[in-house]
Amino acid sequence: MSVATDTIRNGVDTEKMFATLDLIKAQPELAQFQFRATNRWIDGAHNRSTIKGFYAAGGEDTSRSDEFELDAGEPAILLGSDTGANPAEYLLHALAACLTTSIVYVAAARRVELTSVESTLTGDMDVRGALGVDDEPRNGFERIGASFRVTGNAPEEKLREIVERGRQRSAVYDMVTNGVPVAVDVTTD
Amino acid sequence: MSVATDTIRNGVDTEKMFATLDLIKAQPELAQFQFRATNRWIDGAHNRSTIKGFYAAGGEDTSRSDEFELDAGEPAILLGSDTGANPAEYLLHALAACLTTSIVYVAAARRVELTSVESTLTGDMDVRGALGVDDEPRNGFERIGASFRVTGNAPEEKLREIVERGRQRSAVYDMVTNGVPVAVDVTTD
Repeated sequence: MSVATDTIRNGVDTEKMFATLDLIKAQPELAQFQFRATNRWIDGAHNRSTIKGFYAAGGEDTSRSDEFELDAGEPAILLGSDTGANPAEYLLHALAACLTTSIVYVAAARRVELTSVESTLTGDMDVRGALGVDDEPRNGFERIGASFRVTGNAPEEKLREIVERGRQRSAVYDMVTNGVPVAVDVTTD
Repeated sequence: MSVATDTIRNGVDTEKMFATLDLIKAQPELAQFQFRATNRWIDGAHNRSTIKGFYAAGGEDTSRSDEFELDAGEPAILLGSDTGANPAEYLLHALAACLTTSIVYVAAARRVELTSVESTLTGDMDVRGALGVDDEPRNGFERIGASFRVTGNAPEEKLREIVERGRQRSAVYDMVTNGVPVAVDVTTD
């Protein structure tokens, strides 16, 4: 077995992972990252974000060759024409994706080979809040449910520990459950 | 000018908008919606969400003909291969998209024709939290900045009011700033 094969687990280069962790332990200032999205309204409920550059490890990261374009929309009942998933659905995707990657990375670090990670997320919303019809219901989801099915070469207890640790370390889970301060500024010319 | 032209503002059918608001005022039980995302791990930091069905206005909505597929990833420095925007970037997009649509809908309702809505969102993160190197930094963004530029056929004060009202009614802004309870359950077979 080659060294490369030995260090890749669940598609994650664990040798690189542990080297990264050691580097950040030694130089905590390298841990400051900034991610960004630039959005432009197109028409109605249709808008598009462009995502490429970010700041990481002491400088602007230029490793991405292409930008990502993400189109948002609304279904007909919310006055759109399905030009993309709606913003609340994108939030569910962000949460599912982050929990999944956290689980996969934790498993790789703990020498567990996963065979599948699947999840279904649901968000319940009383749209009277966001539509401005009633002040009582909140605008966003009242609750989110996340049902995971995880399989791999470890006993059930170990797999559950990995999911729990993944949840505890997920960036988006932290933000969605605990909230983040958001500063909005506006120019009009 | 035709009736249709008259009711469409900013790409939003305001006649349909006011009819929807009246219907939900009269029958608040129609305001219960559920959105969903199903995610599947592919390899490493690569996973994919599929989004299509949702519950709205008293029944399963079947108006969407196609599903949306969203691929997540991580850049090289976070052990991925850029198979998509990363989960935290998707959260920024969700927030930008929701604020933008809220602004556009509020403007349509208030008879303001917008010419542009552009925004740049930034999220600052100390990745020691999510990487499990240090318990002190939180996992998610410490703060999010959202810079909007909004232009249209209204004075600055009116445009600022519209942005403020859009912020107050945005579903994702509410969730990201105030947090949402998330219940995670797991099966392993």
